[in-house]
Amino acid sequence: MTFSVQVKVMPLKELLDPQGKAVMGGLGNLGLSSIQDVRIGKNITLQVEAQTAEEAKSIAEQAAKKLLANPVMEQFEISVN
Amino acid sequence: MTFSVQVKVMPLKELLDPQGKAVMGGLGNLGLSSIQDVRIGKNITLQVEAQTAEEAKSIAEQAAKKLLANPVMEQFEISVN
Repeated sequence: MTFSVQVKVMPLKELLDPQGKAVMGGLGNLGLSSIQDVRIGKNITLQVEAQTAEEAKSIAEQAAKKLLANPVMEQFEISVN
Repeated sequence: MTFSVQVKVMPLKELLDPQGKAVMGGLGNLGLSSIQDVRIGKNITLQVEAQTAEEAKSIAEQAAKKLLANPVMEQFEISVN
């Protein structure tokens, strides 16, 4: 069975997010000054072949730890649909 | 009131996602061959100052249309927490 697994990778809260800060400046220039903070991360959709949702989640977790997220700068969250 | 709004920007289904294909190759090399497809997009968290959740969503939608997503190549989804 194929599960669609979402991996959300975001910069750690403690760290500055220069890409987000740049986008916030751009939004201010466009007149959208009610946006007070922007943080930008990755959203990765995996199609995982597995017997159960738990197995699919565990495979996605291995993928996130080994390749998708850099634990020094990023945290990740996994959800299976 | 400040709302936390998530904007999920993904490459259109019809288009090839070369970054996702490269990551899929990498996962295969790491032995995670049960992952059959990878698509990579952006996840953007906005802190929006607004009176209601609807207003916050509408501001985020303007931001997505004007700056965050490229409609030729990407689609976006907005959710307010």
